[in-house]
Amino acid sequence: MIVALAGGVGGAKLVDGLASLLAPSQLLAVVNTGDDFEHLGFHISPDIDTIMYTLGGRANPKTGWGLAGETWNFMEALGRLGGETWFRLGDKDLATHVRRTAMLQAGTSLTDVTAALCRVMCIGHGVAPMSDDKVRTLVDTDIGELAFQDYFVRHRCKPVLRGLRYDGADKAQISPRVLKALDDPQLSAVVICPSNPYLSIAPILAIPGMRERLQSLPVPVIAVSPILGGQAVKGPTAKIMRELGLEVSALEVARHYHGLVDGFILDEQDAALEPAVAELGMATLVTPTLMNTNADRIDLAHEVRGFAERMKAGIES
Amino acid sequence: MIVALAGGVGGAKLVDGLASLLAPSQLLAVVNTGDDFEHLGFHISPDIDTIMYTLGGRANPKTGWGLAGETWNFMEALGRLGGETWFRLGDKDLATHVRRTAMLQAGTSLTDVTAALCRVMCIGHGVAPMSDDKVRTLVDTDIGELAFQDYFVRHRCKPVLRGLRYDGADKAQISPRVLKALDDPQLSAVVICPSNPYLSIAPILAIPGMRERLQSLPVPVIAVSPILGGQAVKGPTAKIMRELGLEVSALEVARHYHGLVDGFILDEQDAALEPAVAELGMATLVTPTLMNTNADRIDLAHEVRGFAERMKAGIES
Repeated sequence: MIVALAGGVGGAKLVDGLASLLAPSQLLAVVNTGDDFEHLGFHISPDIDTIMYTLGGRANPKTGWGLAGETWNFMEALGRLGGETWFRLGDKDLATHVRRTAMLQAGTSLTDVTAALCRVMCIGHGVAPMSDDKVRTLVDTDIGELAFQDYFVRHRCKPVLRGLRYDGADKAQISPRVLKALDDPQLSAVVICPSNPYLSIAPILAIPGMRERLQSLPVPVIAVSPILGGQAVKGPTAKIMRELGLEVSALEVARHYHGLVDGFILDEQDAALEPAVAELGMATLVTPTLMNTNADRIDLAHEVRGFAERMKAGIES
Repeated sequence: MIVALAGGVGGAKLVDGLASLLAPSQLLAVVNTGDDFEHLGFHISPDIDTIMYTLGGRANPKTGWGLAGETWNFMEALGRLGGETWFRLGDKDLATHVRRTAMLQAGTSLTDVTAALCRVMCIGHGVAPMSDDKVRTLVDTDIGELAFQDYFVRHRCKPVLRGLRYDGADKAQISPRVLKALDDPQLSAVVICPSNPYLSIAPILAIPGMRERLQSLPVPVIAVSPILGGQAVKGPTAKIMRELGLEVSALEVARHYHGLVDGFILDEQDAALEPAVAELGMATLVTPTLMNTNADRIDLAHEVRGFAERMKAGIES
């Protein structure tokens, strides 16, 4: 059984690849909810939705987020009424937010809401929020502190990032479903997906006890670098690293995960960095990590699983 | 200036006819909110929406309610997620509910929300809820007491009606905009539209002080019969009258409004009932009242206005 820590699009692709290889009970995606926000009366969980839509085979293949064949009549009508349209909500996508919000308001936990949504979307593999408690990523920038979606969507990541905090994380508890999976004797590896380390993975690791639990696991913790050849595949990872004064490289990501991660996967084009990563005390694997096609996702998932198995055998021997 | 008390489709048609004759400042529609309900997290005001969409020229001409050119992608997606779909919410219509709900939650009164929605829909004539307070029509039936939309939409008015109550009406206050209009020295008539007397008009009259205010006005109060030739044009008015043990006739409607209404308008086919209505002490007008076309709406509005002017001249002379 594999637990995969994931954020949005990049994480969803690897989770989807792993889902192709593993039985439903053998995979739990632990999803960042630092991006969640309340908007127009809805509780929106962008990363959970991206993972669910991807696993359900319903994601928009062009954007990676949102639904395929989406329509925008609600959004257009709302715009005509003077409502806020900077966060694009499709007509079909809206049903997810309405359903989630109603269930949360009825007192159901986000963990159980997510499980219920997965059931009706015929998603067998596990998807759980990192926590049922409210954690909100706040971005300190040159124009002031911004709520995550304000920074990410409304301002398109243009403000210069000075720092990040994960408001509420210090009081949040790990989702019971995640705790159970991490305690499961069947667990064979934890995979940190190639998601943004600062925006997507850091909120998960900020929950009290999460980092310590991962460090004390008797199974390998493996990260896949989201930086390839000094660039991010998608999103603001490279920009953020520069603004934080960091070198934009897979090695820097490995350094970021130092002390937590036992194995690190680098893209082929970063093969030259392998010795430096190994010097950090990590096992390494160099393999193609770009996931343009469904086959790429499955290939990378194969590599990740094989690496984990070899590492686990090494740990146990 | 005319104040028109109105419910849904029938009321909306006469209000629309009056709007064709009168300047924006000369008409205020006072709309039933006993049908309002909270559903899927939204505050839905069906009668206000029907009036606004009709005045805005955006109503679905086939149903009389909802929007022309509506799409149903949200509703279909919600159904797939196991959400409630018995109350049909179109993608475009949803924007109205989202906007209204957000404004109400921000503390804006329903009167001000309605005015704001009218502004963005370019509706110049006045539309106001009967009250900013919560009034909910409850229907006592052979299968128990039902919330109005449960009775009306989910059960399609099939249960036998035994009685009605307007929960909250005793503590509700008349909307300040309605009070202002009723006190306006420019007021020349109050028109009770051909809406359901029990479901649409009665909740308005149930608000403390409303009936007394109308009775003490120095201008005529005129009702248009929603019953023509012993039948209702649309909706359950006739069925409800039968179940309440009443004769299904325009005369019975006139009796219902006795003591409140000074003038009563009957359809041509009910000309034989005119003497009996006149015996109740009401001025009468017999005219075509069926509003199939836009021209019919304007014609009836002309008749209503002329009748009101003649009555007012009579009152003043």
